[in-house]
Amino acid sequence: MAWSYRRQVTFPETDASGRVHFTSVLKWAEEAEHHFLAEKGIAVLTPEGGWPRVGVQCDYRLPFAFGDEFEVELVLAQMGRKSLRWSFRILNGSSDVAAEGEMTTVFVEQGEATEIPQAVRALLDK
Amino acid sequence: MAWSYRRQVTFPETDASGRVHFTSVLKWAEEAEHHFLAEKGIAVLTPEGGWPRVGVQCDYRLPFAFGDEFEVELVLAQMGRKSLRWSFRILNGSSDVAAEGEMTTVFVEQGEATEIPQAVRALLDK
Amino acid sequence: MAWSYRRQVTFPETDASGRVHFTSVLKWAEEAEHHFLAEKGIAVLTPEGGWPRVGVQCDYRLPFAFGDEFEVELVLAQMGRKSLRWSFRILNGSSDVAAEGEMTTVFVEQGEATEIPQAVRALLDK
Amino acid sequence: MAWSYRRQVTFPETDASGRVHFTSVLKWAEEAEHHFLAEKGIAVLTPEGGWPRVGVQCDYRLPFAFGDEFEVELVLAQMGRKSLRWSFRILNGSSDVAAEGEMTTVFVEQGEATEIPQAVRALLDK
Repeated sequence: MAWSYRRQVTFPETDASGRVHFTSVLKWAEEAEHHFLAEKGIAVLTPEGGWPRVGVQCDYRLPFAFGDEFEVELVLAQMGRKSLRWSFRILNGSSDVAAEGEMTTVFVEQGEATEIPQAVRALLDK
Repeated sequence: MAWSYRRQVTFPETDASGRVHFTSVLKWAEEAEHHFLAEKGIAVLTPEGGWPRVGVQCDYRLPFAFGDEFEVELVLAQMGRKSLRWSFRILNGSSDVAAEGEMTTVFVEQGEATEIPQAVRALLDK
Repeated sequence: MAWSYRRQVTFPETDASGRVHFTSVLKWAEEAEHHFLAEKGIAVLTPEGGWPRVGVQCDYRLPFAFGDEFEVELVLAQMGRKSLRWSFRILNGSSDVAAEGEMTTVFVEQGEATEIPQAVRALLDK
Repeated sequence: MAWSYRRQVTFPETDASGRVHFTSVLKWAEEAEHHFLAEKGIAVLTPEGGWPRVGVQCDYRLPFAFGDEFEVELVLAQMGRKSLRWSFRILNGSSDVAAEGEMTTVFVEQGEATEIPQAVRALLDK
């Protein structure tokens, strides 16, 4: 089931094309993931590590402009031993799919990819 | 043949993990592409349009820290009717492939994907 | 009277010091101003112009970390003929003043600083 | 005596006004400072601390666009017991002063403003 995160485009997220820079859209997907984890009670960043991305992919279909509303629909597509695969869709104010992609994060402790603890798995499953 | 672009990681390109944010690496690939186009004499941004990304993909293998040297190896992998597919590798100071990916840009005029003019094709082929 | 804008620190707003980059705090002040203008019914960005900054100043007293709550207290300190002077305070979750500053924006049309129209003044005064 | 740092405006440094975002100019001043320190053999960021900004101020006179050349003229204006005051001017390709400001950094170790070591002072004086 998709988890939803919404806000508006800020000015520094745009570029001289008059539209949103392509990297801003990827920041939104990460921002949604961080809110998802926080809501589940899972630490996003710890002194020992966190959830860095090892892969991202995104298709851009429709542009966003300053002030536009967007919604990230985030799905935890797959739970691996050390990694999570997220899929996301970014909807515009008319509920059109403006962007769509995936990202894979790994659970890192002490700088090393590490097995996701059972307690964290349980929280993700809830 | 790969075209090369080099510089050092700046401070705002890092995040609280102590490493480079994943979107900075994608900005480097775009920055390399812009330098490539400029060197060929091709306009990157015009009042009427430019070369927005319609797809990006990246795998991250090794992290970068503030001040690290990096090199983008950029290859124009495919020239379509209205689009260009670029592949890139980001090397660290030890020439290890730290990141690797692709991006597809479209030629846009008046807000519409447009056939790449023959003159531009000729410059890309040079 | 101070106008208030609140949200949480996002990950890309931090840097490798583990804290928020100094420019992120200035983006928050601008973001608050944009929300203020939008709420008053004043266009922030138009095809002909907008409200670029001609001066900013900020003192930083306490750091912010990823996920911290912050509140921007924004005051329209002075309305000039072509410019607005804003003062702002950024409060942390304990309501301490973590940063404090000013910014001056000018009303721009066709690339030129222009007298602020009477209708806009009326909206600002409301 | 002014120390000089030059490069070109990148695309993500611009915004939907078609010009450079005001915070990008401040990043350039910091980037110049970091290059200055590195060239003197002074660590910019250490596991224990660094040189965070406690104050910045900037006046913006002329805009920058994507691809524009700029030069930061940086001067170490004052060396305090725990802090450094830097003044900077940003010149455009016609050597006009497009922006001008100051920033104050403090020497931080273990999260605390600390007296600047004699060895660092000697390097700054060289």
